[in-house]
Amino acid sequence: MHLVAIGGSDAGISAALRARELDPGVDVTVVVADAYPNFSICGIPYYISGEVTHWSNLAHRTHADLEATGMRLRLDTLVTAIDVAGQRLKVREPNGTESFIDYDELVVGTGAVPVRPPIDGLDDLGPADGVHLLHSMGDTFALSESLDRIEPKTALIVGAGYVGLEMAEGLTMRGIKVTQVEMLAEVLPTVDVELGALVHAELDRHGVMVHTNSTVTRIGRSTAGSNGRLHVDGLGPDDEALSWDVDLVLVVVGVRPDTELLIDAGAKAGARGAVEVDETMAIGLPHVWAAGDCVVTHHRLLGVTYLPLGTTAHKQGRVAGENALGGQARFAGSLGTQVVKVFDLVAARTGLREHEAAKASYSPVSTTALADDHKAYYPGARPITIRVTGDHRTGELLGAQLIGSLGTEVAKRVDTFAMALFHRMRVDDMSELDLSYTPPLGSPWDAVQMAAQAWVREHELPAQRNKFRDQARF
Amino acid sequence: MHLVAIGGSDAGISAALRARELDPGVDVTVVVADAYPNFSICGIPYYISGEVTHWSNLAHRTHADLEATGMRLRLDTLVTAIDVAGQRLKVREPNGTESFIDYDELVVGTGAVPVRPPIDGLDDLGPADGVHLLHSMGDTFALSESLDRIEPKTALIVGAGYVGLEMAEGLTMRGIKVTQVEMLAEVLPTVDVELGALVHAELDRHGVMVHTNSTVTRIGRSTAGSNGRLHVDGLGPDDEALSWDVDLVLVVVGVRPDTELLIDAGAKAGARGAVEVDETMAIGLPHVWAAGDCVVTHHRLLGVTYLPLGTTAHKQGRVAGENALGGQARFAGSLGTQVVKVFDLVAARTGLREHEAAKASYSPVSTTALADDHKAYYPGARPITIRVTGDHRTGELLGAQLIGSLGTEVAKRVDTFAMALFHRMRVDDMSELDLSYTPPLGSPWDAVQMAAQAWVREHELPAQRNKFRDQARF
Repeated sequence: MHLVAIGGSDAGISAALRARELDPGVDVTVVVADAYPNFSICGIPYYISGEVTHWSNLAHRTHADLEATGMRLRLDTLVTAIDVAGQRLKVREPNGTESFIDYDELVVGTGAVPVRPPIDGLDDLGPADGVHLLHSMGDTFALSESLDRIEPKTALIVGAGYVGLEMAEGLTMRGIKVTQVEMLAEVLPTVDVELGALVHAELDRHGVMVHTNSTVTRIGRSTAGSNGRLHVDGLGPDDEALSWDVDLVLVVVGVRPDTELLIDAGAKAGARGAVEVDETMAIGLPHVWAAGDCVVTHHRLLGVTYLPLGTTAHKQGRVAGENALGGQARFAGSLGTQVVKVFDLVAARTGLREHEAAKASYSPVSTTALADDHKAYYPGARPITIRVTGDHRTGELLGAQLIGSLGTEVAKRVDTFAMALFHRMRVDDMSELDLSYTPPLGSPWDAVQMAAQAWVREHELPAQRNKFRDQARF
Repeated sequence: MHLVAIGGSDAGISAALRARELDPGVDVTVVVADAYPNFSICGIPYYISGEVTHWSNLAHRTHADLEATGMRLRLDTLVTAIDVAGQRLKVREPNGTESFIDYDELVVGTGAVPVRPPIDGLDDLGPADGVHLLHSMGDTFALSESLDRIEPKTALIVGAGYVGLEMAEGLTMRGIKVTQVEMLAEVLPTVDVELGALVHAELDRHGVMVHTNSTVTRIGRSTAGSNGRLHVDGLGPDDEALSWDVDLVLVVVGVRPDTELLIDAGAKAGARGAVEVDETMAIGLPHVWAAGDCVVTHHRLLGVTYLPLGTTAHKQGRVAGENALGGQARFAGSLGTQVVKVFDLVAARTGLREHEAAKASYSPVSTTALADDHKAYYPGARPITIRVTGDHRTGELLGAQLIGSLGTEVAKRVDTFAMALFHRMRVDDMSELDLSYTPPLGSPWDAVQMAAQAWVREHELPAQRNKFRDQARF
């Protein structure tokens, strides 16, 4: 039995690890297009910031760790075609020659590639000019090289999503003056505007110049004597012209699934062009499984969508690796749980926001509450902003968004909501949960329960209150 | 409709608040034996340590806050008897006169009183001698007064449970040299010995002199010229004689339910002498409900037990207040979720340990794992010790114990286990949970999932592995 995984990132490696764990007798080969298997892409901003001192530390596991599990790695080896009927891969070897790898079962984890937005001049410029996209280790080395070579004083970041925000922090930590341009109404558009505004204020506080409702339309080289190497044109909120001269431009506006190999092999494209997959990670081609950012995402509240996240890729890869060996595993589904640290703030979300829930035929209403991370009498208590979304017909929890200072345990408090969503709890029933309490770290009703109770008071209690009033009248 | 609550602590106040919230038309009176309604008893150690600067800050709500909800407070008023048939209370007014309070519905939250262990001389000494028990605000004022008057250089704490440990930290913070004597094999006996040993080491690190497997047998006044005002005798692990001269003795060895009023009124005593109550907080006497530390605890895994906790009292009081108004609420049950901060360490638990689970006819096995709180490449990662207990026949999660440094989000990570227990998840299924991840605050598999996976590898995988091996052989 020979299991082959394409892709050295979360999905491919998770599949390979799971297979080796379940059956040490199975042969496992992972084919990796570059020389960097099992690197933590999510850690790149912290290498760029200087907090991670050597890029090799970004590896979840070293090459030696991986080989110690008994898997074989074929690095710098590009798969150019999948021969489904013949159960073999056509590959380009590191030396450029073509060869074939036979498989009994195949797990494809080709991941995603960064989106190139329609900016004039972007295709004519590259790392040599200080213009960068950022997704792979190769991109990381190129950016790092630019930073050393150019020693930029200023940088412009296109996009204020997770990576854009982490990079704004990272470049600021290097002493670079950052301008950040976001097309949508507020930074961190994965949370509601009122919460994104808190992140915006944190960026302001740290000297990042933020432009929302703004787009970059053109990037070119600056004219001699300019205050920077690159000239960037854009449009502001009322279509007014904007322009900047900066030393470096970073374009981080999201990713799209890398599906060419699978589509060429006969796979079907689904949501956002990602490959259709069922909960077993089967894609409808014999002996071929796929996982991670290249496939659609089963979401517990939404059905099938596309929501590429490392945590999901790990889980899907694990399921694919198990099923490739004849297992019966199923991917339980994503809830879109996410968290990001931006300077001294932590923002998290899980489940749906109102517009997403409404589109999926729920009846969402939301309440924003402020609740201290721990008892106010114990020093250092700080408020967490918690926005709870629930269904006003059923009382079911639909989602939660949290923002608090670093140290307020927001990252693990969002997990409480994620678990409530996993088990499809009603908002009101969150008051039943036996959560931990000690004055330095919580409250008798935890912040998440206070937020749930605020939602209930606003959206559910009047009817209940009347019921009680009637009953109390006997 | 007149609802009366006896007791100004968590249960009584929660019942009163809930009633006022559900029906602003209901009359609510809370009868409080002292002058300190709605104080956070859990916060006392932080007042003694000096971190809470004024005792009045320990109030969850001020007197004015409480009255603003529309409830009436009768302070310094001691209920001496419940006349169930007559639906009235006999009370001793602040001026010492006797009177009666009529009620339509009654919620009793008399709480608990500190256990007085059988120590020779304890009954002859008191606050005036620097010998203290610690449970009420009155006890707190007495201790505070002793600290100011005696200015102790040394103190001995009998007991190393939650309050004992918090007080060891609090007194150490005041510059007092603390000796701590624990009867059982390790400090923090609510967790397994291997985890308690980590807390023990933390106490050592901060200069607390810990004696485990040791008891205090006698307390008396020191002879003139001694190195302290009080002479304490004890027995060590092999019954060897121990003795200490110290300036202050604090006895904190747990609580017992305060049930006299209810038992006299006809209530039945159950586990550990606490009053029997059903999940609606009814105690079998007409129009009388009870909640908090004076009643037995419904536990989701154990059935009926006695496990007094503030979080539970809040929930039970809320249920009692709702049902007193004709509601249909049920207390969903405790999981014994607890957390304590001891200097720079946080220890938490939820659910059952092996001996508790075995007694309740589960088939418990445990695995202890070390998992970093966040990715090791990001600065400041620290290991969390996580001991997972599960049933080796069913794979069901039974409990978890966690110890980590302050800042490793242990208090909210135990909540993830608490929620898994609430929903009776299998340990293996915890890998399905969509928990949050960003490198500064977590891992793609959160620490709790890594611990769950370690349990599965040790206790469940061999059979599964064979199954897969068989299936893979086709």
